[in-house]
Amino acid sequence: MTYCVAMRLANGLVFASDSRTNAGFDQISTFRKMHVFDQEGERELVILSAGNLATSQSVISLLEKRCGTEELNLLNAPSMFEAAELVGQTMREVIRRDNPDGKISHVDFSCSMILGGQIRGENPRLFNIYAEGNFIEATRETPYFQIGESKYGKPILDRIMKFDTDLDRAYECALISFDSTMKSNLSVGMPLDVAIYRNDELKPCFIEQVDEHNDYFHQLRTKWHKGIQSLFNDLVPPNIR
Amino acid sequence: MTYCVAMRLANGLVFASDSRTNAGFDQISTFRKMHVFDQEGERELVILSAGNLATSQSVISLLEKRCGTEELNLLNAPSMFEAAELVGQTMREVIRRDNPDGKISHVDFSCSMILGGQIRGENPRLFNIYAEGNFIEATRETPYFQIGESKYGKPILDRIMKFDTDLDRAYECALISFDSTMKSNLSVGMPLDVAIYRNDELKPCFIEQVDEHNDYFHQLRTKWHKGIQSLFNDLVPPNIR
Repeated sequence: MTYCVAMRLANGLVFASDSRTNAGFDQISTFRKMHVFDQEGERELVILSAGNLATSQSVISLLEKRCGTEELNLLNAPSMFEAAELVGQTMREVIRRDNPDGKISHVDFSCSMILGGQIRGENPRLFNIYAEGNFIEATRETPYFQIGESKYGKPILDRIMKFDTDLDRAYECALISFDSTMKSNLSVGMPLDVAIYRNDELKPCFIEQVDEHNDYFHQLRTKWHKGIQSLFNDLVPPNIR
Repeated sequence: MTYCVAMRLANGLVFASDSRTNAGFDQISTFRKMHVFDQEGERELVILSAGNLATSQSVISLLEKRCGTEELNLLNAPSMFEAAELVGQTMREVIRRDNPDGKISHVDFSCSMILGGQIRGENPRLFNIYAEGNFIEATRETPYFQIGESKYGKPILDRIMKFDTDLDRAYECALISFDSTMKSNLSVGMPLDVAIYRNDELKPCFIEQVDEHNDYFHQLRTKWHKGIQSLFNDLVPPNIR
């Protein structure tokens, strides 16, 4: 499985993804699920992917291959909306290629993606692109999207994240959301990829890869775990008789 | 949906279930998912159910109807293992009744159940009974089972619950697990049913129904939410440039 989360906040965008892929329990690999499309001064786009790896890799390869050509691509799309349409359309194209008759199969060819970024002249935008290729956009009231194994890490986002949360706090919250997920589900694993984009910079994101040796993450998860246990123990338990 | 959790701990058993049932978003009802089979001095059994409501209600009705008859039933089964076999067999019987040819249907007839309790002469035991009617038993290393919408509330159980956790603390932890679930998923709702059985009592469980007006739960969820926010804010955020 996979877990990815992305947030559109007052000051910018935050993206995080894990890198574990499994086809059965004995075929576990590491694949990055974060893909960046840069064009300094013009645009900065980030895609996170979940679902069938063959599908999502083909979608990303096609999107990359078409950059620099005359046809509509991620580096010439005039708006983020058109970029989201293009990603959705490429997802449908790949699924049609691999399963042309739309047969029900024991293989699930579908994938889902999150696309976020900024194109000069627009505000930063964030889209959640469903397996069918249609999509929704993040709003002030719903500032984050998750794809993949999203449920374990949702409560902490719901308790903390607001549209005006600072970018460093959003990064901290994303790491705790990943920690909770990885504690409860083996199919989500390190290293994590994190990208942070500040509004109107139109230059490459701050990128960090968080692995087992990352001191900050190690301290954060230890302190969080102990903090949760203290918080729990400091509350008065219910009276049961 | 539904969320149920049950724990087999050093001092006894803890059960908790929500009571929301939905068939689509405009057909939301309240149904208890906790069913108790008492026989003072002899046995105390609790069943939690999730999945198709027609199936689980029929299974419980058949189990109740057969109590007091000559055939094998929950009040004369000689062991918890045989009680678990009986529940699994009754689940298969109902699903076969409603879908005799095992056809693939857009209706999911399946349900899953947790059975726990004690029969005189045995230690308390706890079983997770799958939709297929087969089952696994809780151990010292894996002291809890969840059915239904289980992922949101799993991280807190994984951080807190141990085999030797006290029963009142286990009840507290179950309530926080429900709070996290209900915050992130509308299909799990109040009131909650809680049952606590102390080892070797062989008499009716301590039973509590927790609704919106329950002072303890109201205080617990408020303190927990504020405590999580303080814990989060007291940690140092990562350095992002």
